[in-house]
Amino acid sequence: MTQFQGSHILSVNQLDLDAINTIFNVATQMTPYALRQKRTRVLEGAVLGNLFFEPSTRTRVSFGCAFNLLGGHVRETTGMASSSLSKGESLYDTARVLSTYSDVIAMRHPEPFSVQEFSVGSRVPVINGGDGTNEHPTQALLDLFTIQKELAEANRGINGLHIAMVGDLRFGRTVHSLSRLLCMYKNVTFTLVSPSELSMPEYVLSDIEKAGHQIKITDQLEGHLDKADILYLTRIQEERFPSQEEANKYRGKFRLNKGIYTQHCKSNTVIMHPLPRDSRAAANELDNDLNSHPNLAIFRQADNGLLIRMALFALTLGVDTQLKQYESPVNWYSRKADF
Amino acid sequence: MTQFQGSHILSVNQLDLDAINTIFNVATQMTPYALRQKRTRVLEGAVLGNLFFEPSTRTRVSFGCAFNLLGGHVRETTGMASSSLSKGESLYDTARVLSTYSDVIAMRHPEPFSVQEFSVGSRVPVINGGDGTNEHPTQALLDLFTIQKELAEANRGINGLHIAMVGDLRFGRTVHSLSRLLCMYKNVTFTLVSPSELSMPEYVLSDIEKAGHQIKITDQLEGHLDKADILYLTRIQEERFPSQEEANKYRGKFRLNKGIYTQHCKSNTVIMHPLPRDSRAAANELDNDLNSHPNLAIFRQADNGLLIRMALFALTLGVDTQLKQYESPVNWYSRKADF
Amino acid sequence: MTQFQGSHILSVNQLDLDAINTIFNVATQMTPYALRQKRTRVLEGAVLGNLFFEPSTRTRVSFGCAFNLLGGHVRETTGMASSSLSKGESLYDTARVLSTYSDVIAMRHPEPFSVQEFSVGSRVPVINGGDGTNEHPTQALLDLFTIQKELAEANRGINGLHIAMVGDLRFGRTVHSLSRLLCMYKNVTFTLVSPSELSMPEYVLSDIEKAGHQIKITDQLEGHLDKADILYLTRIQEERFPSQEEANKYRGKFRLNKGIYTQHCKSNTVIMHPLPRDSRAAANELDNDLNSHPNLAIFRQADNGLLIRMALFALTLGVDTQLKQYESPVNWYSRKADF
Repeated sequence: MTQFQGSHILSVNQLDLDAINTIFNVATQMTPYALRQKRTRVLEGAVLGNLFFEPSTRTRVSFGCAFNLLGGHVRETTGMASSSLSKGESLYDTARVLSTYSDVIAMRHPEPFSVQEFSVGSRVPVINGGDGTNEHPTQALLDLFTIQKELAEANRGINGLHIAMVGDLRFGRTVHSLSRLLCMYKNVTFTLVSPSELSMPEYVLSDIEKAGHQIKITDQLEGHLDKADILYLTRIQEERFPSQEEANKYRGKFRLNKGIYTQHCKSNTVIMHPLPRDSRAAANELDNDLNSHPNLAIFRQADNGLLIRMALFALTLGVDTQLKQYESPVNWYSRKADF
Repeated sequence: MTQFQGSHILSVNQLDLDAINTIFNVATQMTPYALRQKRTRVLEGAVLGNLFFEPSTRTRVSFGCAFNLLGGHVRETTGMASSSLSKGESLYDTARVLSTYSDVIAMRHPEPFSVQEFSVGSRVPVINGGDGTNEHPTQALLDLFTIQKELAEANRGINGLHIAMVGDLRFGRTVHSLSRLLCMYKNVTFTLVSPSELSMPEYVLSDIEKAGHQIKITDQLEGHLDKADILYLTRIQEERFPSQEEANKYRGKFRLNKGIYTQHCKSNTVIMHPLPRDSRAAANELDNDLNSHPNLAIFRQADNGLLIRMALFALTLGVDTQLKQYESPVNWYSRKADF
Repeated sequence: MTQFQGSHILSVNQLDLDAINTIFNVATQMTPYALRQKRTRVLEGAVLGNLFFEPSTRTRVSFGCAFNLLGGHVRETTGMASSSLSKGESLYDTARVLSTYSDVIAMRHPEPFSVQEFSVGSRVPVINGGDGTNEHPTQALLDLFTIQKELAEANRGINGLHIAMVGDLRFGRTVHSLSRLLCMYKNVTFTLVSPSELSMPEYVLSDIEKAGHQIKITDQLEGHLDKADILYLTRIQEERFPSQEEANKYRGKFRLNKGIYTQHCKSNTVIMHPLPRDSRAAANELDNDLNSHPNLAIFRQADNGLLIRMALFALTLGVDTQLKQYESPVNWYSRKADF
């Protein structure tokens, strides 16, 4: 039994290195099930409450699929309109009622700290699937897990890593949470590339410095990427800006394509992005001409998200040691994926 | 085989005391499965069509989860916009087509008697999940089941019950259906507390009187609750009023909190509410200061709803006697709930 | 192993007579499972990604139920609003990410050829559930399968068929795809009944002629139906017209009811319609007075859709020969349906 059994997963702040290694260890064991090389029915009969009070297709489907792959059923809700929350119901009441209907809950909500508030009323473990501008811990975990796996290909660990974070570092909660996780490792170098209006918040910088890591700040993409092991690009989220005109000012200024990559990066620099990316011609932040490049890890990130979410379900429900016991072969056609 | 096998559940009027006792008996047998002490796969391979042409998160999820807990799959639809009904399709056609896709249907629809109309075209049993201002029979059943269970704690039955119904008794279909069910018992006293504009309809009063029960009518909460075994509060549903101003007039006038409860009720009076309740400070109809009171049964009502719905699926599909045959232990972490 | 294993089903153009017969053969084997006479768990543990970027209740539920009936889980998404597609994500990216989460995908999308574009990025088989004005291949297959089954009742095959297609032949993609499939058979007569503004497109007519079949074109329903074995009615889709006034002009002009049927058709003419039909009094295109007529095949079409979709899942996932191996009896009440 791990510390996770029966616990909520609300924030990366509740995790130490031991906890992270436990999650990554279980996530790795999930690979054959996610690849459909084998199947497991370890959660057959269990029910996930997949509560997306803010819509998010890919995260919702990823949580739901992760639970199905462990053999469980999924009940879902999407959006606020149909919800009693819009009639003045408290998150406590919602939690007391809806948590009766499931064994574990994954929840997204537009309000910061709403998932935490909900968890107080919940009778079952709650996993934060994103609470507004606050946190999205499974994204941070899948990013870190991807970094670890990509570096392991080159027989390296996370200690000593050089990461360049590019784009909207002010509003992008993924880079905040990832930075916090990286602070637990040793001797990390952060190159932070953004327009000055969208620079990394002070409290994140302060955390990085306290942890003894190195920071380089710039507003130029070119000339600052040559030492990076990981290039983490983020979308300039246009809905954050007061107007479309304001948003347009930054379009394309922090754009990566094959030419820039080849000229300015090491040959083994890994390219990451939390997705979705804007693939329209004018807006491209990460060009399609890198789609078949082996160092492009953006789809492997999504793959790893499935593994992380499977691991968190197995850990919070305490079945991480029973996976093989409920295992059986896959009897249908399954494609070879590149996890 | 019971009378329920292959039958529709459309109205509380189709139920007599024997039928109700059968449902409650099966619902009680569902408790260990709902509490995840055991699981059953009695409906593995069966499909529920969970058709919510009017959105309702908690009722929809409760029906869906109830079916999952019996081992079955759930297919859902929410809202009218995406439905062919908006293109002039008849409920008969919709029923003929959608009932091919499932073994049983739970349906909510904004139009009174629409579920009944749908059931004519359906090839499988249809359970009414609420048809506008008409009926919501599973709510009435879970309310009655809760009353029976709460009174049983004090070694009492429903005969001789004193119930106080408070709030909007005119538009609240839950109190109408519950009253009708209580008419089948003996020697019940109804204290009806509402503003005169929202008083209990004549036809309900007439039914209660014909059944030989006692009625007390008042528009004052205080001073009329001291004999009540059950205090059934209802939300003043603001969307029923012509304007928000009209609605505001009644805000807080039939509000229960710890002070009023302690002063005006017996120490074992059970507090019920169909939920959701409005928990905003100004609007509170049932204050949060009673949240941890042992007599507050509002969340146990929701729990009992799960049991009732599981029972109705088992009965209409004729598997109520097979539950144990498909039983197995639960192998994951499960919280202790307070059913 | 068939040619279908691991393949996309995007268009009727990719199918020859052998392929069609393979599909129909497997669809026929699905009948006892769809009728709940038996169940099969052949796809237990598999996940369907049911991606309806354009809403369609009946087609979505039909795909999802078909997968459940084979024992698999279903993850769904409905509409575009909540999707990253609206933020400029390419179909390639969407496909790369979402196809990680499932073993097979059924997809509907409003843009012609979008499903094909999506399939390029998908790691798993994609089945086209309708891509705008382009194709809806499972509808065409279920229509053809229905024709074959209905004619088989009279000991006939499709060769030598006389079919009358009525209504909106210009925008109705179902009649285009069905015509293309019928071209593979021998000696078919097409009677095409529509207002001239809504007549069959030239490229379809040209295909029919090249295949050596006979065409009769008219704008009058009465007097042209007496030789038809199959009467295929289509809805005049009012949303295709520039205005409601324009749409109203055609209301009721191609309407079938019991009187017209009895007077103008052979006694064994089979009535088909892709549904939904507009059942409002003024708009009726196919009157309810034929609802209990044994030759009305419109609900059998929907039933057959379930069989076709089950067959396509079994074929693309290569489990069509394993159905019986995972079979078990049905232990719950199941209605007799008229497949």
